[in-house]
Amino acid sequence: MRIVRIIPPSAAPAAPLLALPVFAILDGSTLRLLSKAPWEGGTPTGETVPHTDALPLLAPVVPSKIVCVGRNYAAHAKELGNEVPKAPLLFFKPPSALIGHGGTIVLPPESERVEHEAEVGIVIGRRCKGISREQAREHIFGVTCVGDITARDLQRADGQWARAKGFDSFCPAGPWIETDLDAKLADLRISCTVNGATRQDGRTSQMIFPIDELLAYTSRMMTLEPGDLLVTGTPEGVGPLVHGDRLEISVEGVGTLACAVRK
Amino acid sequence: MRIVRIIPPSAAPAAPLLALPVFAILDGSTLRLLSKAPWEGGTPTGETVPHTDALPLLAPVVPSKIVCVGRNYAAHAKELGNEVPKAPLLFFKPPSALIGHGGTIVLPPESERVEHEAEVGIVIGRRCKGISREQAREHIFGVTCVGDITARDLQRADGQWARAKGFDSFCPAGPWIETDLDAKLADLRISCTVNGATRQDGRTSQMIFPIDELLAYTSRMMTLEPGDLLVTGTPEGVGPLVHGDRLEISVEGVGTLACAVRK
Repeated sequence: MRIVRIIPPSAAPAAPLLALPVFAILDGSTLRLLSKAPWEGGTPTGETVPHTDALPLLAPVVPSKIVCVGRNYAAHAKELGNEVPKAPLLFFKPPSALIGHGGTIVLPPESERVEHEAEVGIVIGRRCKGISREQAREHIFGVTCVGDITARDLQRADGQWARAKGFDSFCPAGPWIETDLDAKLADLRISCTVNGATRQDGRTSQMIFPIDELLAYTSRMMTLEPGDLLVTGTPEGVGPLVHGDRLEISVEGVGTLACAVRK
Repeated sequence: MRIVRIIPPSAAPAAPLLALPVFAILDGSTLRLLSKAPWEGGTPTGETVPHTDALPLLAPVVPSKIVCVGRNYAAHAKELGNEVPKAPLLFFKPPSALIGHGGTIVLPPESERVEHEAEVGIVIGRRCKGISREQAREHIFGVTCVGDITARDLQRADGQWARAKGFDSFCPAGPWIETDLDAKLADLRISCTVNGATRQDGRTSQMIFPIDELLAYTSRMMTLEPGDLLVTGTPEGVGPLVHGDRLEISVEGVGTLACAVRK
């Protein structure tokens, strides 16, 4: 099942910015609106909207936090001159950084080097704290494509990564959440292209800490809430984004998230 | 005006955990319930509840993000052997770390050295992006006491601070938000005691980057949402917390936030 988040065009055609976003099930070319987020018990309202290219797909999550993992692929740690970590290296991105499919990554004037990092995003389905690796799957709602956009120069200058990875638009996510990938999580292809040329192409099987372990590890310290987003690290091949680029991030079994890049 | 967040005892006496928290105005010994968060336009519903010690005061914010500032007092940077930063050093704490007045800071088994950092918390009142220092005040809702509880050993080991500062219960906040401190923000006393003995005692006038500048700087990269919490750094005197301690954090003009500490 695919879950999207949209502003229904029927809701307030004259004032679309005032209409509230809703979650919906993407069923072929039909969007079946939900009463609330599916991880909060949302059910179909009976209302439908046609799925057209003209209808923007918002980031399919409204997380209370975005937990990210650094250096989770050995070849990527190496390409930036870092050692392979002994435990998952966690950091946060702010929810204000989220944009959806078709959104625009805005290059901030503070940075001379903004890079793409294509990642598999895991959406939490059930509140959890202190769970085991074996319990991880039952707490996962689904999978989406995420970009951990990073101002590489500011990351190096600041030490802490909050600013370099926290600019508005630095967390594209979508186009939707796919809920039926449980059996394949351990070996999904994650790739990205810039202007059609492949830049990153890895598999979750190359992760130093697999998804189940990341969930268990994170839940040892913090309660994960339904709808929270766990961003699981990037394979090698990170590189610059410049004004006019088109970034596409693909996760096998999910689809492709596309964003524009501009100054 | 003082704003608290509570679970009204009348709401569901038999199942208090199922009752939803609400915001309220603390007016002497009376709590005047609000229809929603004041920064979302909440107004008094007419219902009142007596303010007694038996009624827990929850963290008075439900922020979309908690932005913190490291090394913002020169004497504190020095006591940990760090240089004074040239720009505000930002990091995030997750909202899952929040606890309220009377709550308990739980020492995690992963750490052998958990420390208190007493800080002035600024609650955002209006959405803002790219504001100037001069515009900062009109975007502030109020002030609260915050503890940036930190597993010092994990902070040093991890490099990134997300784990060391992100454990559940590592962000006590409260007891309420005071809204009438605008004129005094630049010179408020911020102090803390452990078991009654003073550990930290500073003033916001000692900040390297004052509150207005922190707000302007942060808003250059990320949209600040109403209800977001900006935690503005700690003065010198940080030190360990152990099982059985009682931590009290006081901000002049606000009040005193008290928490227990246990393993």
